Amino acid sequence: MSRSIGYLTAKLAQQVDEELMSTAGAFSLDQLMELAGLACAQTLERVYKRDKYPRVLVCCGPGNQGGDGLVAARHLGMFGYQPTIWMPKPGSKEIYKRLQTQCTNMHIPTLPSSPDTSSLRDALAHSDVILDAIFGFSFKPPVRAPFDAALPLLAQSGLPIVSVDVPSGWDVEKGNEAGVGLEPDVLISLTAPKEGVRGFRGRHFLGGRFVTKAMEEKFGLNLPEYPGSDQIVELPQADEAQRL
Amino acid sequence: MSRSIGYLTAKLAQQVDEELMSTAGAFSLDQLMELAGLACAQTLERVYKRDKYPRVLVCCGPGNQGGDGLVAARHLGMFGYQPTIWMPKPGSKEIYKRLQTQCTNMHIPTLPSSPDTSSLRDALAHSDVILDAIFGFSFKPPVRAPFDAALPLLAQSGLPIVSVDVPSGWDVEKGNEAGVGLEPDVLISLTAPKEGVRGFRGRHFLGGRFVTKAMEEKFGLNLPEYPGSDQIVELPQADEAQRL
Repeated sequence: MSRSIGYLTAKLAQQVDEELMSTAGAFSLDQLMELAGLACAQTLERVYKRDKYPRVLVCCGPGNQGGDGLVAARHLGMFGYQPTIWMPKPGSKEIYKRLQTQCTNMHIPTLPSSPDTSSLRDALAHSDVILDAIFGFSFKPPVRAPFDAALPLLAQSGLPIVSVDVPSGWDVEKGNEAGVGLEPDVLISLTAPKEGVRGFRGRHFLGGRFVTKAMEEKFGLNLPEYPGSDQIVELPQADEAQRL
Repeated sequence: MSRSIGYLTAKLAQQVDEELMSTAGAFSLDQLMELAGLACAQTLERVYKRDKYPRVLVCCGPGNQGGDGLVAARHLGMFGYQPTIWMPKPGSKEIYKRLQTQCTNMHIPTLPSSPDTSSLRDALAHSDVILDAIFGFSFKPPVRAPFDAALPLLAQSGLPIVSVDVPSGWDVEKGNEAGVGLEPDVLISLTAPKEGVRGFRGRHFLGGRFVTKAMEEKFGLNLPEYPGSDQIVELPQADEAQRL
């Protein structure tokens, strides 16, 4: 029996999420987003220390991953970073508004929505690292405006990128085949890595320490052991894993 | 200006909680309980490692602190401990039911409610450490049944005790004056310590890393800096603090 970690298809990733939030799983979106966003912030802090990388541009998409980004921005603020939020298409769910208010209460600025990308360009020039929480496992191509113009700007900024779950622009199962996606330095997979990131070569972390043993077995996840009480665990590099 | 940490009266502790959950603060109970319970579990893990103290008896009261206890039990299960829950008077809020289901899904047992304390006695004989999440800052004496019979049992068990926020049986402002409270080895204060624990002499941690700078100033909390991305910080011993 293989002991290597399981990778989720888009469909299975969806099923894991649904099961966690079903009546049987009993988790609320508030709970899962809080733990996911905390894991994202802790991953960034593990790799990019705040004395060298204080200014974090947190890029949030229109779906649940944008919510993870808002939670991460708040925790990064608590850790002493200076986050700035770019969220040009906030989702309509009530939770995003609450998460945004929590950030506003911490004086975390949100970039003004502008028809062009000028405010994003300007923010990139004043940032040290990017947290990419734009698209997650429910992303379907093509990349739509304004994100189609934003992804190349993020890529060309030369800033280090930490991507959440699936690098933005990648197909959840086929990866960056189309070549329009970001190439992050660090990836934080949530609950379990997705098929599309099998070939990812940067530093790869896992977060979302709320999957029960029963679910792990049901979905064949073979998750690694998290150390102590940590909410994140670093996975072996892809080439190392192949040798194991 | 004194730089020592601020202690909260019962009234101020209530105000801090209300402000966090007000429309202005925008936090949901789900979010705050998740972060508080995680901090409790991480504190226990910091002091009592699972190889020596695998069996944790999580004692939950009828209020919000019981909810923190349920969240902590789940995280302890995730950390590889074997928690058992004693919650003889579950609160009626819907959130407690969801948190209990999450524990049940992880095969964390809950002791049967019994008119006497026999199941609690038996569980104590098979536990290595106690997490005391019975009463918090909204406790008002006297200690009512079945907790009046339980507190002496916990105290006499000789097991190490980690108390949440205020050791159970203590007055929130006057401490253990009445002498009916537990004498824990470890205390985890949430958001800020309460007046009654000024004289506490064990290992003292702080959790609840979600208080904004503005609230910290408003309530004169002078919170210590949490290290890195940690969700808990150990406070100096009371006698050390007096020398500072």
